[in-house]
Amino acid sequence: MEEETGTLPPKSAFSEWYNELLWRAEIMDVRYPVKGLYVWYPHGFAIRREVYRILREIMDREHREALFPLLIPASEFMKEAEHIKGFEDEVYWVTRGGKAELDIPLALRPTSETAIYPMYALWIRSHADLPLRIYQVVNSFRYETKHTRPLIRLREITSFKEAHTVHATWEEAEEQVRKAITFYREFYERLCVPVIVSRRPDWDKFPGADYTLAVDTIMPDGKTLQIGTAHHLGTHFSRTFQILFEDKNGEQKHAQQTCYGISERSIAALISLHGDDRGIILPPDVAPIQVIIVPVIVGKRKDEILAQAASLATELRGGAYRVQMDNRDLRPGAKYYYWEMRGVPLRLEIGPRDIDAGVVTAITRDGERSVLPRINLGEKVRDTLSGFEVRLREKARHRMEDGITKVTSLSEIPPALEKGIAIIPWCGERACADKLAQQSGGDVLGIITDTGKSVRKEGSCIICGEPAIPTLMGRAY
Amino acid sequence: MEEETGTLPPKSAFSEWYNELLWRAEIMDVRYPVKGLYVWYPHGFAIRREVYRILREIMDREHREALFPLLIPASEFMKEAEHIKGFEDEVYWVTRGGKAELDIPLALRPTSETAIYPMYALWIRSHADLPLRIYQVVNSFRYETKHTRPLIRLREITSFKEAHTVHATWEEAEEQVRKAITFYREFYERLCVPVIVSRRPDWDKFPGADYTLAVDTIMPDGKTLQIGTAHHLGTHFSRTFQILFEDKNGEQKHAQQTCYGISERSIAALISLHGDDRGIILPPDVAPIQVIIVPVIVGKRKDEILAQAASLATELRGGAYRVQMDNRDLRPGAKYYYWEMRGVPLRLEIGPRDIDAGVVTAITRDGERSVLPRINLGEKVRDTLSGFEVRLREKARHRMEDGITKVTSLSEIPPALEKGIAIIPWCGERACADKLAQQSGGDVLGIITDTGKSVRKEGSCIICGEPAIPTLMGRAY
Repeated sequence: MEEETGTLPPKSAFSEWYNELLWRAEIMDVRYPVKGLYVWYPHGFAIRREVYRILREIMDREHREALFPLLIPASEFMKEAEHIKGFEDEVYWVTRGGKAELDIPLALRPTSETAIYPMYALWIRSHADLPLRIYQVVNSFRYETKHTRPLIRLREITSFKEAHTVHATWEEAEEQVRKAITFYREFYERLCVPVIVSRRPDWDKFPGADYTLAVDTIMPDGKTLQIGTAHHLGTHFSRTFQILFEDKNGEQKHAQQTCYGISERSIAALISLHGDDRGIILPPDVAPIQVIIVPVIVGKRKDEILAQAASLATELRGGAYRVQMDNRDLRPGAKYYYWEMRGVPLRLEIGPRDIDAGVVTAITRDGERSVLPRINLGEKVRDTLSGFEVRLREKARHRMEDGITKVTSLSEIPPALEKGIAIIPWCGERACADKLAQQSGGDVLGIITDTGKSVRKEGSCIICGEPAIPTLMGRAY
Repeated sequence: MEEETGTLPPKSAFSEWYNELLWRAEIMDVRYPVKGLYVWYPHGFAIRREVYRILREIMDREHREALFPLLIPASEFMKEAEHIKGFEDEVYWVTRGGKAELDIPLALRPTSETAIYPMYALWIRSHADLPLRIYQVVNSFRYETKHTRPLIRLREITSFKEAHTVHATWEEAEEQVRKAITFYREFYERLCVPVIVSRRPDWDKFPGADYTLAVDTIMPDGKTLQIGTAHHLGTHFSRTFQILFEDKNGEQKHAQQTCYGISERSIAALISLHGDDRGIILPPDVAPIQVIIVPVIVGKRKDEILAQAASLATELRGGAYRVQMDNRDLRPGAKYYYWEMRGVPLRLEIGPRDIDAGVVTAITRDGERSVLPRINLGEKVRDTLSGFEVRLREKARHRMEDGITKVTSLSEIPPALEKGIAIIPWCGERACADKLAQQSGGDVLGIITDTGKSVRKEGSCIICGEPAIPTLMGRAY
């Protein structure tokens, strides 16, 4: 087996670092012969499995998973006017089956409202059927004409988790949108990814929504990445698709709906925020391999060392850790390079001196070295991993906080955007937002809120001087 | 909540039973507005989760999961001549993105050889990269012009598990095909689904394969359902896609390949083989709910009974059972009907008399009733479930054995096919197979073998009298 050579560009050159990291850490292969479509390497896919296991754990508490078809007939897709307008330039169309033209073209779902809601119209009859909370994890398609980027701007979104809920009242749907944000906050907390939530301006909301809340994070280059959205759909779709229910008084009413989604952008954030010049860094919870054991082999005690390493692996697996032992015929340095690149949280080295001293040498992926007693190692490993996770989360949180600047004048915005997000006072009018964007080079992301409700006024709009609401500006991906 | 009413057609009317069961047991909704596309209900999807958890467990032992794009450019898809011929009538083509015609039409994968192998050509350089064993679980598409049927003949196969392996020699690939069959045998053993393996005749092999092994089962109507295949691809694709490796002597060689797959037909077999007039029956291993607890409520002791039922649920969950308690406001009979329809292996009833006697009443889905002591109930539940599983497996195995008849003359074939599979002596010539098919109304499925190797000759061909090989005939779905 060849040793890997070459180094990653420094993380300060983020874009180059990201592109190079994807293949060196074996996350995605970008050489697939269609623009915007990528291949998940086994290691990348193993990370995806852990990330989506966590997402499912959270969703399963109050949703049920289902699965709807990919192909949506043009007749259904074209029913909701705003929705069509929002997606018509981005939809892939299947027009041929075998050698025949199809009677009705079929859209590859860009999102599944128009696939799911005709079924909801059949499923929902009475208030007793509500609330209905379902999600699916599917591939979705956007014919992106902009620059595509692995995990971030894709033509095949391979990992779209979309939830679709139905409620009796507008307020209950509003409450569900608020809860969606708490689910996503918890999810990202477990990925050690800090987030900030805002309500998108009306011109930037989901096509067919009453309003949209969005979860953003700040990437290492200071740009913001939208990594989750939650939409109050009101009755836009239930009127179009005739989703009616009989309420307690026997009256027919249009249902209130929400939808909310997360994609593999969550993994883009995960690897971008935590990685360093040596590769990716994975929180233990999502690491396919949490502990890599490297036997440090010295000629004549080889068998003994390998046996000790193997018994260590067995013991830790029994403690429910995901453990692998690297007994390839490579220099230790090459092994360290290999597993650091792939983000393994903890490396345990065991050599003749460790055995003689009854210890194991532990090195976390952020470089903390300690010597752990061999006895009851499982507990020490737990403490070491949990300390590492806390450091990872705190470090990311501090960087995020450093990237957010409160400003009160136009001239302060560009330097704030260089670092990340500017919190500005804005009146809520589009004309002012457009001027802010033009004059600062950033975008109005939305007003700060976790609930969708307008927050209290504070300060005056930088542009027009009217009473303002604290608002996020950033340079969006 | 309304009680469910109406009954299932008897299983003896298999086709009606199957169609009605799918929605009554909440497996699939067939009302999606495109032919051949169906919706997984949450309960059906939960069964799918358990089934594919088992499949992944087995695959993960010596494969790694990855994920390749759905869309295959026409230029790649059209490279391998036999492969094209096998699929050209069945491929869906994407020809438009937004409002623009695409430069190159994109195929929705009917199977992924032509998506994966261009990448393998990049990944594989040397003998040290072999064997390579990868699988993915994906949606795949066939523009079926025949009669479509949920889980069995689909336009969107939602759950295609396909493995693709690469080896240095033809013999190693042959060994991998043999192992694939052992994986599939183990998988179906865990689903309590009996199978029979054969080598398909050359005219029925996978387009681009040296040979194809297939796993069949006998459905309740006596027809055979192919529920798994494994193909030795030889160098058909490695020559087309230039998958070369340097062997130990430094020579460039074309790699030897295999692929093997399983789809949601596994779930069609699962529910068809075990179900009865009252609904589906699930082996405990794949049941999303293994134990349903039904409190039998008598007015004045209601709180006590509910508390006892809840503590029972908690205790069993602690024993790692998947348990649900049904405290809906329905008659007990309606609850029994509901959970029997959905296949729950074990129902525990707890009422005032059970509490007074320190027992719980247990009824397995196949109707065995027992009274279990409340103390250490977890162990008793394990025994009860495991006894139930053994009965289910044995019953299905016996029915399969009863469905297979060894015959030596033409006139015996039609009655054998009525029951299921006929084992016949056949010489291996297509002309004789065609005559057999014409004269008996069945199809030659293939010669009996688990390894791909020809088995010893036995008897003489029913048609031409030449030395013959034991061969399966059936009426295939």
